[in-house]
Amino acid sequence: MREHKLEIRVSYADTDQMGVVYYGNYLTWFERGRTELLRESGLAYKDMEKQDVYLPVVEASCAYKAPACYDDLIIIKTIVGKIGRSSISFSYEIYRKDGNKLLATGETRHAFINRERAIVPAPEEVSKRLTE
Amino acid sequence: MREHKLEIRVSYADTDQMGVVYYGNYLTWFERGRTELLRESGLAYKDMEKQDVYLPVVEASCAYKAPACYDDLIIIKTIVGKIGRSSISFSYEIYRKDGNKLLATGETRHAFINRERAIVPAPEEVSKRLTE
Amino acid sequence: MREHKLEIRVSYADTDQMGVVYYGNYLTWFERGRTELLRESGLAYKDMEKQDVYLPVVEASCAYKAPACYDDLIIIKTIVGKIGRSSISFSYEIYRKDGNKLLATGETRHAFINRERAIVPAPEEVSKRLTE
Amino acid sequence: MREHKLEIRVSYADTDQMGVVYYGNYLTWFERGRTELLRESGLAYKDMEKQDVYLPVVEASCAYKAPACYDDLIIIKTIVGKIGRSSISFSYEIYRKDGNKLLATGETRHAFINRERAIVPAPEEVSKRLTE
Repeated sequence: MREHKLEIRVSYADTDQMGVVYYGNYLTWFERGRTELLRESGLAYKDMEKQDVYLPVVEASCAYKAPACYDDLIIIKTIVGKIGRSSISFSYEIYRKDGNKLLATGETRHAFINRERAIVPAPEEVSKRLTE
Repeated sequence: MREHKLEIRVSYADTDQMGVVYYGNYLTWFERGRTELLRESGLAYKDMEKQDVYLPVVEASCAYKAPACYDDLIIIKTIVGKIGRSSISFSYEIYRKDGNKLLATGETRHAFINRERAIVPAPEEVSKRLTE
Repeated sequence: MREHKLEIRVSYADTDQMGVVYYGNYLTWFERGRTELLRESGLAYKDMEKQDVYLPVVEASCAYKAPACYDDLIIIKTIVGKIGRSSISFSYEIYRKDGNKLLATGETRHAFINRERAIVPAPEEVSKRLTE
Repeated sequence: MREHKLEIRVSYADTDQMGVVYYGNYLTWFERGRTELLRESGLAYKDMEKQDVYLPVVEASCAYKAPACYDDLIIIKTIVGKIGRSSISFSYEIYRKDGNKLLATGETRHAFINRERAIVPAPEEVSKRLTE
């Protein structure tokens, strides 16, 4: 799977007093998106951790184009990026479902590590399933 | 130590679109308050976990009397409550520093457990230090 | 509508280093539950605010019975409680979907207020729709 | 003022089940840092909003170098970057106080807007105070 779309609803907790979603919360949405992409690729992240493979974020960025508001239905589009020897990237597009307006774009880069926080090679299964 | 006061500043992240602090965030403030009370009693919670003593919350409540707003300086007053065989309670009073206005009160009750989530007796040192 | 069930997925952001959902996050779940109950009753909270009716939380409580863990599917059951002259209560039951295990119960009580934070009577439509 | 240092303590709420601070929370730290830099420059953000000047984030990025852990004392160093006609940038360095270890670096870029979300020029006072 190279792409995945997840629909979520903006809660009151997500907003700030500017009346829009707080900028830090988009990184939580990115996490939700990539988790579901992995799951649908047969790679539940929970199971990866059980096999001693962790994917901490090494770099994250977000460009905010238009605000997401309370009660908006949001589409989180996650796209698999470059899979390196021991790293992987995802990019994200955040849309308001109503009108399909692009609200934000982003990227995260992750290292493959084990429980002792040592870098490990990307498991072959991961590369295989995410490039099919 | 039976009481502790901690001063914090309301951030934008704490607020919601009603222009006040989101109700769930008070529980985070309670945590900050009891952590500092424990620390000043010589019972750093981090060290308790290293000694295989955990204090998960079993019950929590909060009564909201007036809103906390962005950039307010807040006083979190934490008071040690009942220490049972394997439980402990704390109560909390949240004040806006400017004017010393009471904004909220709350309580949390905690169990003493170990890593395997089995109930354990309250360590004698804890009872001793918190009732001095 | 007197009851509503909402299904959500525990994200990494929801967890803490004890490996379970942080206790404050249950209040966000309660919010999600009552928002959807209101919506399905024809009372979108967003529209209530446009009609100058706000429902801030006056009291909240939660009893934690078993931990919710990363990636769990969670059922948030919201039940309408007492509707007073200018207040309303909801109670909540949080289940792990797998095994239908009860993880937590809770309650919130809300005041009906307007933009100026003055208490207002519960709109007749609200009482009507929530007691049908 | 061109630089500011703020000290904060990592709370349990900040952590995730990997036992480290959740990656999205660094953006909240950045916010805390720039708010205090502005305040010490005589530019309380709260007052800017009262004068109809808002500073929403247009771009944010963070590079994670080493994990922040529960109870760590953290130094948030905020540095004023480029001040454009209607934009401003800040960069950030996050240190563990113990050992002065660099944990993360980041940047945010902000637009100057008014209540109606129209772009406005950077107020002269802002440029003046932040470049002194």
